Amino acid sequence: MATPQPSPKSYGIVLFPQFEVLDAAGPLEILNMLAFLSQNDEMKLSVIAQTLDPVNPGPIAPATLSANFNGQQHYLPTHTFDTAPPLDVLIVPGGRGTRASDETLKPLLGFLRTTYHGREGVKPLQYIFSICTGSLLLAKAGILTGHRATSNKKAWDLVTRSPESGQTHWVAKARWVVSGNVWTTSGVSAGIDGMVALVGEVYGEETAGKVCDAVEHSRVRDAGDDPFAEMNGCRDVLPVG
Amino acid sequence: MATPQPSPKSYGIVLFPQFEVLDAAGPLEILNMLAFLSQNDEMKLSVIAQTLDPVNPGPIAPATLSANFNGQQHYLPTHTFDTAPPLDVLIVPGGRGTRASDETLKPLLGFLRTTYHGREGVKPLQYIFSICTGSLLLAKAGILTGHRATSNKKAWDLVTRSPESGQTHWVAKARWVVSGNVWTTSGVSAGIDGMVALVGEVYGEETAGKVCDAVEHSRVRDAGDDPFAEMNGCRDVLPVG
Repeated sequence: MATPQPSPKSYGIVLFPQFEVLDAAGPLEILNMLAFLSQNDEMKLSVIAQTLDPVNPGPIAPATLSANFNGQQHYLPTHTFDTAPPLDVLIVPGGRGTRASDETLKPLLGFLRTTYHGREGVKPLQYIFSICTGSLLLAKAGILTGHRATSNKKAWDLVTRSPESGQTHWVAKARWVVSGNVWTTSGVSAGIDGMVALVGEVYGEETAGKVCDAVEHSRVRDAGDDPFAEMNGCRDVLPVG
Repeated sequence: MATPQPSPKSYGIVLFPQFEVLDAAGPLEILNMLAFLSQNDEMKLSVIAQTLDPVNPGPIAPATLSANFNGQQHYLPTHTFDTAPPLDVLIVPGGRGTRASDETLKPLLGFLRTTYHGREGVKPLQYIFSICTGSLLLAKAGILTGHRATSNKKAWDLVTRSPESGQTHWVAKARWVVSGNVWTTSGVSAGIDGMVALVGEVYGEETAGKVCDAVEHSRVRDAGDDPFAEMNGCRDVLPVG
């Protein structure tokens, strides 16, 4: 068992262009319901992006396609990378935006790195939690070095063969993976099950069960229960050297 | 089998204060992925609210609690009730905002009614699709008269005993219910399964399966597969008189 820690109070989620909508909304719904059911007014959320401009999940490649659908969903940040408060938990969604250029991703990766490790006068995170290809961002930020992790099963090769992914044991058959304080989940809807598991760890299984019942979600209880790994022919990828 | 109709092109979702985040994001994710996988640039989305101000799901009752968490999630509408384009499909989430006063709900209910039935020069909807207590809004708008419908299982009595709910057969053991062109789903996460079913009806089962696999969702295939009805002691409620 992990050493008991104080319950997290300051939650953050990063948003970036072309993030995946349910990657973000699934875990947020679980936490919204937790805050409501437990009447917890100590839980705070910061929605963090590079600027305070609305962030949207579209257009998706090719750029001219589907802009009218995905591109109409606009989410307003509350903080920038520079103004975000100290955090206990940081949620990192995936999506096509994780494949942006190094130049584009640089501020986001810097924020992830600094927030995870802490900085002068600011404690490191209690938990970092990525969904889907959000784990590619964690790898690129150097956070997955020496860790076990998982990712979206349709993007398996892209993520696990990325140059920054070589110091990680990528676990294929996993709905989610816990490695120290680094939680990574499989694709999109897996973020719901992973966050329920984190709620179970932090607030207890009874609370996690109540949250599931309230959102009428039949949870995946076993982190290894993942039919999508086999469906997509994914295998574990071990650290290099 | 229903008479074949042209595939919907113009989708809308209504947002209102204290809507439930996953009620909205679950079906949107399914449609986002559909648009992406099918490279469908004819699908358009309008995010519709009373004004163009950001809409957020908090604070939740009591008003002082959890405002810091839920209330930090801001969604930007693209259209108002007055500027929304003609729609083929309208998505109606639930949430605590469905219990607002008649006075507060009046513009929203008017929009639902007019959009569902059509108005001079504008065709009626092909489908209306509610999630969770969104069906209470449909009942209040008179749309459920003579229909079968379902709703959130924890809010079952509130919804089915509402004065406007008496002309509806409320089906307890249902993940979702299809009644003509009125689709209603059970609570929160059921919106994902319901929208997958609608995608199956409109675009075919193969497409629906591909969407599920891409978001790594193990779908509920049987509309009657609903453990939450029994868990909450819900029973069917027949129309009055």
